[in-house]
Amino acid sequence: MKHDLSSTPARGHVTLVGAGPGDPELLTIKALKAIQSATVVMVDDLVNEAIVAFASPSARIVYVGKRGGCKSTPQSFIEKLMVTAALEGENVVRLKGGDPFVFGRGGEELEALHAAGVRVTVINGITAGLAAVSSLGVPLTHREYAHGVVFVTGHAKPGSMGTDWRALATTARQAKLTLVIYMGVSGAATIQRELMHGLHADTPVAIIQNATLPQQRHAVCTLSELHSTIEREQLCSPSVIVVGDVLQGLLAAGLEVDSTPAYARTA
Amino acid sequence: MKHDLSSTPARGHVTLVGAGPGDPELLTIKALKAIQSATVVMVDDLVNEAIVAFASPSARIVYVGKRGGCKSTPQSFIEKLMVTAALEGENVVRLKGGDPFVFGRGGEELEALHAAGVRVTVINGITAGLAAVSSLGVPLTHREYAHGVVFVTGHAKPGSMGTDWRALATTARQAKLTLVIYMGVSGAATIQRELMHGLHADTPVAIIQNATLPQQRHAVCTLSELHSTIEREQLCSPSVIVVGDVLQGLLAAGLEVDSTPAYARTA
Repeated sequence: MKHDLSSTPARGHVTLVGAGPGDPELLTIKALKAIQSATVVMVDDLVNEAIVAFASPSARIVYVGKRGGCKSTPQSFIEKLMVTAALEGENVVRLKGGDPFVFGRGGEELEALHAAGVRVTVINGITAGLAAVSSLGVPLTHREYAHGVVFVTGHAKPGSMGTDWRALATTARQAKLTLVIYMGVSGAATIQRELMHGLHADTPVAIIQNATLPQQRHAVCTLSELHSTIEREQLCSPSVIVVGDVLQGLLAAGLEVDSTPAYARTA
Repeated sequence: MKHDLSSTPARGHVTLVGAGPGDPELLTIKALKAIQSATVVMVDDLVNEAIVAFASPSARIVYVGKRGGCKSTPQSFIEKLMVTAALEGENVVRLKGGDPFVFGRGGEELEALHAAGVRVTVINGITAGLAAVSSLGVPLTHREYAHGVVFVTGHAKPGSMGTDWRALATTARQAKLTLVIYMGVSGAATIQRELMHGLHADTPVAIIQNATLPQQRHAVCTLSELHSTIEREQLCSPSVIVVGDVLQGLLAAGLEVDSTPAYARTA
């Protein structure tokens, strides 16, 4: 039995595509082909222009994310635009930074498209948290130090309860989990304070801004220095915060801020 | 200050490459280029032959993983092979299923290569857990149901303490986290029993075997039916077990086992 999430017959088609963390070569072959064959590309913020440039010269490019002061396009408006274009017979690609299904609101867009009877294909991307940690030459899991990894957001839906950082910290210590926190820079003071209820103050932490891009910067410190390091080094969004013993070697090598392109760093 | 993880001058070069979950088109462009330019490709089990076929006809292909009864190649032997080939001036690609840094033992290989003074580059891949969940048309995170995701292994290092499933279950419920369990099928009875100390018996669960490949199969059930469903449907390795409310819609659509190619499923 195939499950049928939509009750109306499918009309039109949208492909939700993960653009990966930034470096255009970290796009999958499948994503590249989808972008090349699209007639309409709806582009989120945080997508590298070099990836948008893979689209056909005749494709219509629609930027639906705005950052830095401007109000971003409302989610419902983006969904309506996608539905309209798909029903008009366009080959629509919805291009999102990282992976559409990891803090990408891809689930909500999928539901809206299904509800409108539009067919949806999903193409995964390398999520920024994975690439950010790898760019430091550090694994997310390790048989000695980390038996798993947690991806969480530091930025909860307005009005909803935020992440239970204390419970997460205790579990991370007990179960040896690496924590990867998306959108956590602006709430770093709270995150630091709450995590210290379950994790040691000297747990290693890294903050990685603009992972995999030429302008990548990062700092390594202890959990008790997280907020002050972000302030001093003026690290800001888009950044990923990583917490865990897999970073021990980096911490031992000394606090550093490095502004060289760091993806696929060699040692 | 650049950190220097190795104290000896770098000689030779190895690229640790994530081959992704199975579908050859889910390889990144960067991984494809690395495979094409390699003179030696050391291939793990679970890597699709269609991906190995991207290598140059003159490249030496070394299979270092064995499954199904045979004893697998010892990790130390694989590391020695890589070091030797790199020091001989070969362009070595180490090809691993999924991502090298998510349960791929990439961290250990990185350490061994650094210790031998060999330069290492890492190219991330789409991890199987992400692709497996996406193939069901389900996001890993969702603003309503899942504020984060945990990737854990059901298969601990021999002699070490296993995952603390009870603590993980409690945190997953409190913090609304999706659980993605790698290598969990053989320990499913224990995982089910322990997780039920923190999660409701009717929490939705999916088991996905051979994600993104033509032979993909999956089943959806409740946590209390996890073990019996695996037994009845004879689901086996390589499989991913997913636990969480993001699967609620699939569960409501009815228990199913689907043997059609399911990646990028449309509805």
